[in-house]
Amino acid sequence: MKPVNIGLLGIGTVGLGTYRVLIRNQEEIQRRAGRHIRISMVADIDVERARSLVSSDCVVVNDGRQIIANPDIDIVVELIGGYGIAYELVMAAIESGKHVVTANKALLAVHGTEIFAAAQRKGVMVAFEASVAGGIPIIKALREGLTANRIEWIAGIINGTTNFILSQMREKNWSFQQALEMAQSLGYAEADPTFDIEGVDAAHKASIMAAIAFGVRMPFKSAYIEGITQLQSQDIRFAEQLGYRIKLLGIAKQTPDGIELRIHPCLVPAKSIIANVEGAMNAVMVQADAVGTTLYYGKGAGSEPTASAVIADLVDITRLQTADPLNRVPHLAFQPQEMRDIPILSIDKVLTAFYLRLGVADQAGVLASVTGILAEFNISIDAMLQQPSHNKEESTELIIVTHQCIESQMNAALEKIQSLSTVIEPVVRIRKEELI
Amino acid sequence: MKPVNIGLLGIGTVGLGTYRVLIRNQEEIQRRAGRHIRISMVADIDVERARSLVSSDCVVVNDGRQIIANPDIDIVVELIGGYGIAYELVMAAIESGKHVVTANKALLAVHGTEIFAAAQRKGVMVAFEASVAGGIPIIKALREGLTANRIEWIAGIINGTTNFILSQMREKNWSFQQALEMAQSLGYAEADPTFDIEGVDAAHKASIMAAIAFGVRMPFKSAYIEGITQLQSQDIRFAEQLGYRIKLLGIAKQTPDGIELRIHPCLVPAKSIIANVEGAMNAVMVQADAVGTTLYYGKGAGSEPTASAVIADLVDITRLQTADPLNRVPHLAFQPQEMRDIPILSIDKVLTAFYLRLGVADQAGVLASVTGILAEFNISIDAMLQQPSHNKEESTELIIVTHQCIESQMNAALEKIQSLSTVIEPVVRIRKEELI
Repeated sequence: MKPVNIGLLGIGTVGLGTYRVLIRNQEEIQRRAGRHIRISMVADIDVERARSLVSSDCVVVNDGRQIIANPDIDIVVELIGGYGIAYELVMAAIESGKHVVTANKALLAVHGTEIFAAAQRKGVMVAFEASVAGGIPIIKALREGLTANRIEWIAGIINGTTNFILSQMREKNWSFQQALEMAQSLGYAEADPTFDIEGVDAAHKASIMAAIAFGVRMPFKSAYIEGITQLQSQDIRFAEQLGYRIKLLGIAKQTPDGIELRIHPCLVPAKSIIANVEGAMNAVMVQADAVGTTLYYGKGAGSEPTASAVIADLVDITRLQTADPLNRVPHLAFQPQEMRDIPILSIDKVLTAFYLRLGVADQAGVLASVTGILAEFNISIDAMLQQPSHNKEESTELIIVTHQCIESQMNAALEKIQSLSTVIEPVVRIRKEELI
Repeated sequence: MKPVNIGLLGIGTVGLGTYRVLIRNQEEIQRRAGRHIRISMVADIDVERARSLVSSDCVVVNDGRQIIANPDIDIVVELIGGYGIAYELVMAAIESGKHVVTANKALLAVHGTEIFAAAQRKGVMVAFEASVAGGIPIIKALREGLTANRIEWIAGIINGTTNFILSQMREKNWSFQQALEMAQSLGYAEADPTFDIEGVDAAHKASIMAAIAFGVRMPFKSAYIEGITQLQSQDIRFAEQLGYRIKLLGIAKQTPDGIELRIHPCLVPAKSIIANVEGAMNAVMVQADAVGTTLYYGKGAGSEPTASAVIADLVDITRLQTADPLNRVPHLAFQPQEMRDIPILSIDKVLTAFYLRLGVADQAGVLASVTGILAEFNISIDAMLQQPSHNKEESTELIIVTHQCIESQMNAALEKIQSLSTVIEPVVRIRKEELI
């Protein structure tokens, strides 16, 4: 059979990994796919460099439009990133009737609705396994493996940079800033790490998972996003004393009132599998009605792990190219006409538990007033820890772990607690999930 | 579109789960699959009971052949188990041109080669996600998700009964027998638990994974199988002191000399994710060249978790029914003509590390003779622990953890060590893998 010809947009880290793995494992992949899959054309702004990386039978151009215009190209792989030229080229590829594989979570989270609608109209596939959790086949698991289930919630460690930073903070008792610098020096964090540390990258991925888990339109713009930049290492230590670890989680949850979609630091039980996902690794936990809890673990980024996902998509498309579009796996797991407009809950309405750290005056009655206010707002206490403060002699640190309550209740309670004259520092609060 | 009609062979635990989940999640499944999938016919020897379980529009018969003879049935689901009537009915279903879904690992491990060859000839699909690790979509991950990779090895906790027993032995310091009785009383072990505790069930599953990971014919008859019945709780304790836990692993590994396929108790680092898979949970770790390590975790058995996998297969078949067989995912991941005859290594030739426990006389020079023999066979020592024996005053227990060596070397060394007059009890040996 004739080879499948791939046009690659962007030969950076993942692009080069894809090129190399396709060549190194060519025989293995062909034994599976039944077809030879090869990158026959590459577009990159640095043509010189690109030429030095690929073999002479691979055409290198500096304009992606040349790939899209080439009738011999069956599938376009977009590995440029961002919303600019990547968006234009993906849309142009779809319009010209080509299938698309992309690792671009930002693009899908922001423009996914129009991209998938265009693909649907043109009867082409847009595959995006590489956009979430790198090499872990989580899109396939959610979209096909768990298709029998009503998915209840997803909780994922889906940003390796922040997980690496949190692991370093815990293991070495470092500040956020120290751990960030280490991550940057080791290449786990970019020079401008904003998207990672502020939770935006995790929010892109959580939004994509929410869409395919629940059959809703891409909900990124309604996500609640809180990064790890405010996290203090003492809270990691206190959490550990209470039997928890702090992870940046992307949570998507179906509730009777709507969908929760929130990215924030979160205490999770130290004994749970997800708490033990350390360093730059990723893991996604999925709770579903028939199967119960499943978890998927692996490298969430990097050249060849991400290439693994890109190539899995290429093989899938190769197989389904000739199939009637009606019989293909729908882009977002649910048939396009079956997508629902379920509201995304504002963070005020979310039900979650809390870890609170209060710097209070070392006086009689403080605990009574604080717990009295929590009781007034119907917030019950799960665990407590009182620590002598290390920096002020007449104050003490009070750690309270609550049971679940609606976040707006907690806001109201904290406002009142903060106004107590004996509460002398801003209250630190971190959400907590038992994930059971 | 017309519904997809399923004929169910056997409405036991998993059959009933499948029936119920298909009805409970009918809307959700149809929103994904685009078709209504329904069980319209059930065959079971207990017709009365079966009738009491299903709605009146589902036809109940006592002979599976009636399902196969019915031209309205699109897919046959075999949930009878074993090699007898299940084998006959699966072959008959294939011969009559029907697609088959089965959870029967024993059948596939023993008769898989002929079953898949027959399916290939008739152009029908035989899907078996439910046969390995219950609800975890591990077949899909290996066959489709990791298709870019050369898979290097797989190590799985793929039998919930034995993992539950091992967890109980460790947590409660129980004997194997005590833990087995607890497992039986809680329904985690059958009245006749032989297949589970002797490792045969895990071997069936490991064989299926080896076939699809490496593109070889079903290798079950060459598997090395060792169960957990000889395991003593003191070894679990000693292992823990050394930083390890003991798990029953199914290991399939590609080496330059052939494929290792072995099921046996195994020390794994206590900090690793797989060591923390407790109770009746399953997990499969896969090492592959591009993606690195990935891990898949979930419930490996039970009514609805297994039903989840059965239904995922039903949806896949529904989607691919109209596709050209050439474009479907091959049954065993590789195209049928691309299967290789790679030899399965005998256990003698396997490279692994060992935990050894020696009951030795409490005399000078014992350690020197034992370590001298290990050195003579080029076996180097990684860790050691000496414990006063609790039951004999003049003896002591010596724990040695070795680096990797070929198993036949270890056999030869142990024969010589055992013949020492100062080694007064049979040497206990358990294999050890770092899984990195």
